[in-house]
Amino acid sequence: MKNIKLQVPGTVANLVCGFDILGMALNEPFDEMEFKLLDERKIIIRHEDEFHLPTEPEKNVAGVVLQKILEKLENQNIGFEVTINKKIKPGSGLGSSAASAAGAAFGANELLGNIFSKEELVYFAMFGEELASGSRHADNIAPCLFGGITLVKSSEPMDIIPLSSPDLYVSAVHPQVEVKTSDARQILKKNIQMKDAVKQWGNVAGLVAGILKNDNKLISRSLEDVLVEPVRSILIPKFDEVKKQSLVLGALGGGISGSGPSIFMLSETKEIAEKVAEIMQKIYNEIGIENYVYVSKINDQGIRIV
Amino acid sequence: MKNIKLQVPGTVANLVCGFDILGMALNEPFDEMEFKLLDERKIIIRHEDEFHLPTEPEKNVAGVVLQKILEKLENQNIGFEVTINKKIKPGSGLGSSAASAAGAAFGANELLGNIFSKEELVYFAMFGEELASGSRHADNIAPCLFGGITLVKSSEPMDIIPLSSPDLYVSAVHPQVEVKTSDARQILKKNIQMKDAVKQWGNVAGLVAGILKNDNKLISRSLEDVLVEPVRSILIPKFDEVKKQSLVLGALGGGISGSGPSIFMLSETKEIAEKVAEIMQKIYNEIGIENYVYVSKINDQGIRIV
Repeated sequence: MKNIKLQVPGTVANLVCGFDILGMALNEPFDEMEFKLLDERKIIIRHEDEFHLPTEPEKNVAGVVLQKILEKLENQNIGFEVTINKKIKPGSGLGSSAASAAGAAFGANELLGNIFSKEELVYFAMFGEELASGSRHADNIAPCLFGGITLVKSSEPMDIIPLSSPDLYVSAVHPQVEVKTSDARQILKKNIQMKDAVKQWGNVAGLVAGILKNDNKLISRSLEDVLVEPVRSILIPKFDEVKKQSLVLGALGGGISGSGPSIFMLSETKEIAEKVAEIMQKIYNEIGIENYVYVSKINDQGIRIV
Repeated sequence: MKNIKLQVPGTVANLVCGFDILGMALNEPFDEMEFKLLDERKIIIRHEDEFHLPTEPEKNVAGVVLQKILEKLENQNIGFEVTINKKIKPGSGLGSSAASAAGAAFGANELLGNIFSKEELVYFAMFGEELASGSRHADNIAPCLFGGITLVKSSEPMDIIPLSSPDLYVSAVHPQVEVKTSDARQILKKNIQMKDAVKQWGNVAGLVAGILKNDNKLISRSLEDVLVEPVRSILIPKFDEVKKQSLVLGALGGGISGSGPSIFMLSETKEIAEKVAEIMQKIYNEIGIENYVYVSKINDQGIRIV
């Protein structure tokens, strides 16, 4: 039977001011997923990583996505066997569950001869996110599938706009501390001041314009979050220090990846991005927090077949 | 002495979801301003229109801008004589005071051999807005000077980003009712829900992307204001009716111009824009409210020398 192997990228959701709407795909870290098409209605999930994730399809993020796809193809005698080597750590805030979900949808579609549109793949993948986090959102799935920076104007009805993939480098650090998505949600203010919201959407407008006009200075000026970061960054030790030092080294800006604890920074050159990653590592090493750093260009393609 | 004649365009601030940040220049209506350079430190303002605006320089919007420019050029024996034929009605919400302010700065600069940048002209013109409304804002001045659709990411420090000038037509109606800017300000909520703000900046992002990618469908889907319009439209009789009928005729969308009472709608063709203007007029005629309608393309240039 046919088989296929994928590299499925990590992603950064809540791109600074673009809380709940802007996301970005990375080249590092990525998950590896291998798919086999079966000739019976069966889903087999195997994990080759160390994360002890459940492999029963109905409890596995990739599994529920494949179940939804099989439901759609109700008269066909087919199934999927998937082997996952997860390198995007669950709970890192780098889109680990979205990678499993989007990878499952993408891989199945490839084996089936690309019968679904990317929008349909987002639809299927959102069931995986629902299993992982309780909410059917596309913030990470969209950049994972489309690559570059994506705007999720609305999840229901689905309205996804791929923006572009700026020629920039990303440094990301995952300090090994636990930030529960539910805590990160709860800490957010439900009510905000109009004047702060105006400032935020001024930055959102500037960021989108900067991305589409390739204006790095404008991107840099717009990478400011006056609403979410001041609240959520409290949950991440040394956040302010990481940000301050990164900017001193010449990073354009950055912030919390997803709901944390990972932090990302954008830079114009690989040299700056590597220096930023070094200082990130140094800051956490000094206080004895285990950490992982990644440097890569913004991923312009999304999932890759290898 | 040198003299010069200008057409200074009306503008739409608070472009639907882009409250306080996005503005647009119109080809109709426009003010006419005629400038003479004098060889003594003197400012003479004449109004040829019917609006009985004060002509003492310190009480006139154009006058205070010219005063600021003269202050800057402290050692030169020069002055300005300006004749204004205002066609943008004060209080219409179509940027009447901004036209006087921006026109004054632009005209003086032309006579002086273009010694100031556009950003400096915005700076001078904001003193005119301050006289007119008490706040030094650039929402209308920026599109008046730059043309097209502009983003004022911030007024202080000044951060203006000209976006582009979509190939679209504007229908605008000014129903002759009074909406005081102070009332329009006061009625606004000071506190809003985060979820509404997220929806708003999703629309802002979509609108900016639509403008820069020339995607009229995306522009149309993004022309939605969940925060300001629902509150302010109460002050404008028949607002909902005008909007509904315009959309039925095929307009892409629109909303309140500035803080009202004018309403504008964007359309892809002149034919649709003219039909929209007709229905606008009909709706207000039926209830006996005097009204003025304008149809023009988005102004891609800003102020014109004639």
